Amino acid sequence: MSAVLLPFEPTEYELRIDKTRRAMQARGIELLIVSDPSNMAWLTGYDGWSFYVHQCVLLALDGDPVWFGRGQDANGARRTVFMEDEDIYGYPDHYVQSTERHPMDYLADAVISVRGWDGLAIGVEMDNYYFSAACHASLQRHLPNARFVDATALVNWQRAVKSSREIEYMRRAARIVEAMHARILKLVEPGLPKNRLIAEIYHTGINGADGFGGDYPAIVPLAPSGADASAPHLTWDERPFKLDEGTFFEIAGCYRRYHCPLSRTIYLGSPPQKFLDTEKAVLEGIDAALDAARPGKTCESVEAAWRKVIKRYGIEKESRCGYPIGLSYPPDWGERTMSLRPGDRTVLEEGMCFHLIPAIWRDDWGLEITESFQVTAGGAEPFCNYPRRLFVKD
Amino acid sequence: MSAVLLPFEPTEYELRIDKTRRAMQARGIELLIVSDPSNMAWLTGYDGWSFYVHQCVLLALDGDPVWFGRGQDANGARRTVFMEDEDIYGYPDHYVQSTERHPMDYLADAVISVRGWDGLAIGVEMDNYYFSAACHASLQRHLPNARFVDATALVNWQRAVKSSREIEYMRRAARIVEAMHARILKLVEPGLPKNRLIAEIYHTGINGADGFGGDYPAIVPLAPSGADASAPHLTWDERPFKLDEGTFFEIAGCYRRYHCPLSRTIYLGSPPQKFLDTEKAVLEGIDAALDAARPGKTCESVEAAWRKVIKRYGIEKESRCGYPIGLSYPPDWGERTMSLRPGDRTVLEEGMCFHLIPAIWRDDWGLEITESFQVTAGGAEPFCNYPRRLFVKD
Repeated sequence: MSAVLLPFEPTEYELRIDKTRRAMQARGIELLIVSDPSNMAWLTGYDGWSFYVHQCVLLALDGDPVWFGRGQDANGARRTVFMEDEDIYGYPDHYVQSTERHPMDYLADAVISVRGWDGLAIGVEMDNYYFSAACHASLQRHLPNARFVDATALVNWQRAVKSSREIEYMRRAARIVEAMHARILKLVEPGLPKNRLIAEIYHTGINGADGFGGDYPAIVPLAPSGADASAPHLTWDERPFKLDEGTFFEIAGCYRRYHCPLSRTIYLGSPPQKFLDTEKAVLEGIDAALDAARPGKTCESVEAAWRKVIKRYGIEKESRCGYPIGLSYPPDWGERTMSLRPGDRTVLEEGMCFHLIPAIWRDDWGLEITESFQVTAGGAEPFCNYPRRLFVKD
Repeated sequence: MSAVLLPFEPTEYELRIDKTRRAMQARGIELLIVSDPSNMAWLTGYDGWSFYVHQCVLLALDGDPVWFGRGQDANGARRTVFMEDEDIYGYPDHYVQSTERHPMDYLADAVISVRGWDGLAIGVEMDNYYFSAACHASLQRHLPNARFVDATALVNWQRAVKSSREIEYMRRAARIVEAMHARILKLVEPGLPKNRLIAEIYHTGINGADGFGGDYPAIVPLAPSGADASAPHLTWDERPFKLDEGTFFEIAGCYRRYHCPLSRTIYLGSPPQKFLDTEKAVLEGIDAALDAARPGKTCESVEAAWRKVIKRYGIEKESRCGYPIGLSYPPDWGERTMSLRPGDRTVLEEGMCFHLIPAIWRDDWGLEITESFQVTAGGAEPFCNYPRRLFVKD
């Protein structure tokens, strides 16, 4: 067996765990059940596409974290986490997708109770991915002496400020997404079936850039054209690109699960004035938002700077204009903590990273020009160096 | 606005809804809340990567289904579902990933109560994807007069028997996965960084085959080598393929969200006897399982046929050897209903489709040779026509 090749130094995992424990103690949580695969990976290194069955990491106030998952995935844990074998538990296969028994029954009885943790204040990620209503019901039934505390996003919040190694990974992801966009711009033309361009996007993204290979982004390429671009989350089909249509490409480079999203819009033909006017407003709004994104400022003040600009152009946008990014697993590359929107008074700190997505979706068209950036002492620093504009090919 | 291009005829959606309503009535359910994106798509046509925020389809005992999701995704619904605008509800953006309010609060107050459904027996998918513990808590709090019933997998079960159009889509997916495996076999060699091969797998899969473009499979390529192949769900890294290692490729072709998974193992160099012995047992076991998979037989009898063969070879496998397949969204391409395993007495019917995955994962190696098949009157009919064996390249 080869040694585990962790993406970070052991000391970085120690820091993450310390930070998480401080947050647990502040909330009176003695045992944390972490079901979100992004949080599991961030705390332990665990990496595998096994989140389609129930699994979690347990973090008590001392000792190493515990990995819990399907029996057959325990080998995957042994090969990706830093913990020793006694902290890796696999549950029997007849608990998988069974109508009679639930993996959380086994967790409660064979791990939590056996370790004497069944009377603790237990934090559960009530609204993170993959912690289903049935998980909660099972734990409540099997751990009558525990006190459950909502720990939604508790770990996500600890991930907000990135380490220098994390920033390095995101920079690699930035090189990858730049290469993906360059490839799109080179190849897109009327008559090209969309899936063929998507194939090239994947090819470039997984091949990687700058000598670093690509990982799978947590969201597939979103590339709606024409009136479909009125909808933010359509994927693709086999129809050819058409003249006189705009298409936005919302994609991310990914390196070792770290993401750098970047959207650009390409118009085939001569764009109508509304595209050009919106481009102008969006670019000016991006400048204003980036200028406002400094340590000590709030999330809502960044959004306000953007909104002030587009208001002058007569544009309104209800949805938030950005969210934090970093390590992620499907279905989302956002961190699901703060948002760049009114009412969010979270204070920006050095090392926080955001996808600024001041997208404009109209009734029968859309335009996305976005930037991912980190907050540095000197202000917002975009990860990508890729022309920020509406591209026109005719 | 262009008309909605549904992947199936309106009558097929009608049949699906009728079938689901009969199952609801049999369980005393008057309103069904469907959160699983695969079920949402199967009932309404909805297609988009928006399942990272809360959304659902509501199905009452009469009238059209109702789509509920984030305001900005309502345009995606308008462009992919068969229902009219009055049955599409978008919730305001400040409900997204908020610590103060939950989208299910809005669903309960602005949709369910307004429609007079708040006193009904409401089925919820307690253990399907994306129905979080917080969703359930919100609905319980906001609908004190409702009676909640566990409807986990209720819709999934209705999906088990495929229509001829569904089978046609899966056949197209089969052509795609055959092309993906042929590409792998052609290119894999010692020294090739694994991510570069994965890039080719994606490229082939999305380009498609036989004139049909590829969609994204619900699971990314799983391609572990050597000792990593002891773990079923590792993805890939940048390290080169090595001589004297086996790699299994668990991948699927996908056409309009319909999947055909197929795994093959390739050994670079001269395979040790254990690979050859296991190949022999697995191939014979597959023959036995396919032979047993006839209408009227049970899931467990198919597994028993497989197990009987490998037992003769001294092989034991704890985990199930197959599951149903069809329409799917991440994180799983399985349907999560029946399993080919002891104790599952579900009776096979014509039109059911399975991924037979008699994979063998050992402590420091693994072998996967699988087949996807449909149950026909004449017995199991594999979707793929791809050599069923351990491939050796030296």
